Amino acid sequence: MTNPCILCVAITGSVPRKEHNPAVPITISEQVESTHAAFEAGAAIAHCHVRNEDETPSADPEKFGRLKEGIEAHCPGMIVQLSTGGRSGAGQARGAMLSLRPDMASLSVGSNNFPTRVYENPPDLVDWLASEMQTYGVMPEIEAFDLSHIFQAVKMQADGRLKGPLYVQFVMGVKNAMPVDREVLEFYIATLKRLAPDAQWCGAGIGPGQIMMNEWSIAMGGHTRA
Amino acid sequence: MTNPCILCVAITGSVPRKEHNPAVPITISEQVESTHAAFEAGAAIAHCHVRNEDETPSADPEKFGRLKEGIEAHCPGMIVQLSTGGRSGAGQARGAMLSLRPDMASLSVGSNNFPTRVYENPPDLVDWLASEMQTYGVMPEIEAFDLSHIFQAVKMQADGRLKGPLYVQFVMGVKNAMPVDREVLEFYIATLKRLAPDAQWCGAGIGPGQIMMNEWSIAMGGHTRA
Ligand SMILES: [Zn+2]
Ligand SMILES: [Zn+2]
Ligand SMILES: [Zn+2]
Ligand SMILES: [Zn+2]
Repeated sequence: MTNPCILCVAITGSVPRKEHNPAVPITISEQVESTHAAFEAGAAIAHCHVRNEDETPSADPEKFGRLKEGIEAHCPGMIVQLSTGGRSGAGQARGAMLSLRPDMASLSVGSNNFPTRVYENPPDLVDWLASEMQTYGVMPEIEAFDLSHIFQAVKMQADGRLKGPLYVQFVMGVKNAMPVDREVLEFYIATLKRLAPDAQWCGAGIGPGQIMMNEWSIAMGGHTRA
Repeated sequence: MTNPCILCVAITGSVPRKEHNPAVPITISEQVESTHAAFEAGAAIAHCHVRNEDETPSADPEKFGRLKEGIEAHCPGMIVQLSTGGRSGAGQARGAMLSLRPDMASLSVGSNNFPTRVYENPPDLVDWLASEMQTYGVMPEIEAFDLSHIFQAVKMQADGRLKGPLYVQFVMGVKNAMPVDREVLEFYIATLKRLAPDAQWCGAGIGPGQIMMNEWSIAMGGHTRA
């Protein structure tokens, strides 16, 4: 039995706006229809961000709730993954939507630089988000922006802060963080297999590296994000 | 011609106090004599932090100046390396001592988690510290707490923010950052050789991993910190 490739679609993200690309879905109804089209095309996970009226990122649980309901209604069986990323809010506001009990939520377990600032995931906030995910039965997708984040996720699983087989996304191509690099991707995979043989992994490339990460991830037996 | 192993001594650091170990040198004269003893024993680089009267970490340039003068007087030819690390100050205060023109200074080029907080090295502060080091002719020791920091240093050298052959220290064993791991150390070395063949590297283990990192670093042809 082979391991089927899971396609995750990140329809909106937290950065691009209509001025960059008029097709970026911003309103909840645009997001639901965009996700529906991706679902018809084969995407199995919807990675979700929500936006304010002015297109800035939001972590509003009410907006997340309407998006989750819309996707569940239009895309039966699709896995809804809500972002707890730091571009959308600060501190525990980043996890306020976890009580909606989505199937999955993203979880960064370490800190790193972003293009213009520090992506701050302090240890106590990481632990709080992980415990909220356990409370509400939400499966985390670990966002590994660097090698040590894989070690941290494995340690958190070993001591019970994370449950079950890990699902780790390797993120490459963010300026001032890890670039898109094939040898690093191979080492990430080998390290995850060494430390957590039952884990699954997904490759995500940001910006121009996205297609390359898609190709490599599929060829190397992982899942991938588009 | 072999590559001689350079021993760097970190006599004080920013964390341990007299209550933890009465032998930790805190005053400038204690630091100078401790460095002198290490110099006699073969240490070639002194990695320096300074402390306030109450033993808390400081970035006071006047204190750094007296320490540098003392080491230069007692240890002729020893390389003085001042810490610009984030435990001792915030923002540009971390680099106020660079105008003293020490031989070297530590430079973190990325951010990561520390035991209880985020070790914040925002991109604009990193660039400012690097440019101050060029202004004052200070050779940076890159502190690589994670794999992406190696890539970042190489990128900074390629675009001129860092000069000359890189000197990179791999730091392992800090809680919530990279643990002491031999396969990662080997991959660090291979990655640095691939990206910057003329670079030199040093291995530093924090806490109980120190001796192991010393052994591995010497065996693998690098430099090391004690
Ligand atoms: Zn996202
Ligand atoms: Zn629909
Ligand atoms: Zn130090
Ligand atoms: Zn002396």
